Amino acid sequence: MLIHSASQLLTLAGGPQRGQSLGSLGLIEDGAVLIHGSEIAAVGKTEELRRAHPFEPELNAKGQVVLPGFVDPHTHLIWAGDRAAEFEMRLEGKTYMEIMAAGGGILSTVRATRQASRDELLVQTRARAKSVFRHGTTTIEAKTGYGLDTDSELRQLQALLALDDEDPLEILPTFMGAHAIGPEYEGNPDGYTRMVCREMLPAVLEWWGLHARNRPLPFVDVFCETGAFSLEQSRVILETAHNLGFPLKIHVDEFDNLGGASLAAELGAVSADHLVKTSPEDIRNLAKSDTVAVALPCTPFGLGDAHYTPAREILAADGLLAIASDMNPGPAWCESMQFVIALACRYLHLTPAQAIAAATINAAAAVNRADQLGSIEPGKQADLLILSVSDYRHLGYRFGTNLVKKVIKKGEVYKI
Amino acid sequence: MLIHSASQLLTLAGGPQRGQSLGSLGLIEDGAVLIHGSEIAAVGKTEELRRAHPFEPELNAKGQVVLPGFVDPHTHLIWAGDRAAEFEMRLEGKTYMEIMAAGGGILSTVRATRQASRDELLVQTRARAKSVFRHGTTTIEAKTGYGLDTDSELRQLQALLALDDEDPLEILPTFMGAHAIGPEYEGNPDGYTRMVCREMLPAVLEWWGLHARNRPLPFVDVFCETGAFSLEQSRVILETAHNLGFPLKIHVDEFDNLGGASLAAELGAVSADHLVKTSPEDIRNLAKSDTVAVALPCTPFGLGDAHYTPAREILAADGLLAIASDMNPGPAWCESMQFVIALACRYLHLTPAQAIAAATINAAAAVNRADQLGSIEPGKQADLLILSVSDYRHLGYRFGTNLVKKVIKKGEVYKI
Repeated sequence: MLIHSASQLLTLAGGPQRGQSLGSLGLIEDGAVLIHGSEIAAVGKTEELRRAHPFEPELNAKGQVVLPGFVDPHTHLIWAGDRAAEFEMRLEGKTYMEIMAAGGGILSTVRATRQASRDELLVQTRARAKSVFRHGTTTIEAKTGYGLDTDSELRQLQALLALDDEDPLEILPTFMGAHAIGPEYEGNPDGYTRMVCREMLPAVLEWWGLHARNRPLPFVDVFCETGAFSLEQSRVILETAHNLGFPLKIHVDEFDNLGGASLAAELGAVSADHLVKTSPEDIRNLAKSDTVAVALPCTPFGLGDAHYTPAREILAADGLLAIASDMNPGPAWCESMQFVIALACRYLHLTPAQAIAAATINAAAAVNRADQLGSIEPGKQADLLILSVSDYRHLGYRFGTNLVKKVIKKGEVYKI
Repeated sequence: MLIHSASQLLTLAGGPQRGQSLGSLGLIEDGAVLIHGSEIAAVGKTEELRRAHPFEPELNAKGQVVLPGFVDPHTHLIWAGDRAAEFEMRLEGKTYMEIMAAGGGILSTVRATRQASRDELLVQTRARAKSVFRHGTTTIEAKTGYGLDTDSELRQLQALLALDDEDPLEILPTFMGAHAIGPEYEGNPDGYTRMVCREMLPAVLEWWGLHARNRPLPFVDVFCETGAFSLEQSRVILETAHNLGFPLKIHVDEFDNLGGASLAAELGAVSADHLVKTSPEDIRNLAKSDTVAVALPCTPFGLGDAHYTPAREILAADGLLAIASDMNPGPAWCESMQFVIALACRYLHLTPAQAIAAATINAAAAVNRADQLGSIEPGKQADLLILSVSDYRHLGYRFGTNLVKKVIKKGEVYKI
């Protein structure tokens, strides 16, 4: 299939974009992409590609932007229930303690998710997966972490793999047993940490060998934050995971700086995420490493908070920056990477071009897939979007709606 | 037609909601609405209405929220072109003067709109109208003001009426020749003001009598702000319009306080809009009147500005508050009242219930149509929405996507 006549074809060619190089779109005017099967076979000017491939079926993208499918590298896609009542209580001025007393917070989602049948969990998560895909995300990272005991966590991993099998949306799972202290270990974070290391992680490895042998191992992620896991507990969990062969991710500096960003760089984590209260020293350590800094602007937006990731400082230090939705049932139930781009322009002070690179090739790097995803280059997976607009800057400029007209996933065309 | 089994039917019955009464949803669990032709005939519990009307065709809304269609009471729906390049320049750190020198700002949209053919103007505006409708707005106010000479302004009025005729979206036009000083009057705001009063307003009245005799007169609106129209110029234009019989609206206090909110109250304007830099005295004057205060949170959001309308102060003073998109090609190209609600919760500190009332019954009051629109009550126009969720608080809680599943306009059902 030859997609041709795009007013702007954004290739994002050339690999992940570090520091001030962020925003190199590889823009081809009147561009075309040749797709063979599930792969990109050629990229160039419409005239050249049509001449070279005169008998291909054609898809006309005249007056439209073509770009790589978005990669959303940080989500909590899988849960049951919602926290709409908690949202209202916060707006009515109820305190955090009152909300907790009414059964709010992460543990309320843990309860709902543990109680849900497998079918119910799949039905609710599938609806989100479909919406995510319609908004242009072709690959999504998805964390467990609303189980917090071994069986419930494995059930979430299994459900994520089942959804990945059925849906055009490609799901890359992350094991996050260390999302919060399990309710059975209240007041005993060290005990829970030991259980994660001695029971959960080996169980995940064994389960994966039995049920998902052909897939790369999932990421292992830890919430390193006051009230969740200390720097020392986070280190123990991540080192254990590393020794078992898992690639690493880490939630750091959302509310407090515990030094987790430097830990991520030291351990060679694939990404360090949130990064709101990150110190200049931590930014320097991160920027010297290959760990991708993942900003999650929906979370402060959702909370009505004015503090966002210091994205320009990360770029000034020559770091690798990506953006993600952080989709979750608390402050950030957002299924659209287009909206993440709109926030990144306003609150991370990125240009549309920088935000698009952070949501494609750099987001692919944040899930260790920059070799297959995130750009339109020969040999890469044919995951791309056709927008209903002729200028890529409408991403960012406009907000609250969906500009995606067609999604192409592994060479298959889906009309939106 | 009987719509039944709604998990929550929000009637918003009882008229516009002043001060702390804002947020009275008139919620009926397991609710039903009977529609005859284009009107609402009855409202109640599913069981009662099904028993009383056993032979009606039925529409099952089980597990879904039913509420009045949104009224968007402040938009600049009709324009040609875009200002995406200007958006990017601002993010690249270009100054206001550099952007102006590159041809940016309102006057760049005036140029593009004047140059566009009638067909082109209709094509571009129709696409927005369709998107607006899909996101649940069933009635929209739409201002001229990208013409700034008599012929161009009349052409916009005519295009708005043509779109209203063809589309399910109901369009209520506002004449806003005083949106900016026309380029032919640069440096001569008094001269332009005289022209608006002596030439434009009489021409609109005459044109309306010839082409739209059966419709209520359009609103007349003025941008009362430093750099646009002074308080004195605004008063002259609004008094002239009032004497010709036009209902009034006014843009005030977006960047500067010139006293326009008190002027609106004094002149009995239908609404005063923006209201960011409004003083406590202006808020008191407004709250004592029947002028609706219309907050436009997309505009500061679009600009990445932290200053929003002091909505809670307006409610504390017992004022009438509505919300609107301010949709325009500058900072606020947003076609979704659902996103306006999400912003209102976070930045105006409204609860979802308050934001919904501000977007329905109070928004209807802000366009002088609270007798026909904005609530689900017998005798009113059958404009309503069916959401894909079972709890109204998902409006506000979730953002960046479209929760509308069906739109009913004048009794006709549109699947989204």
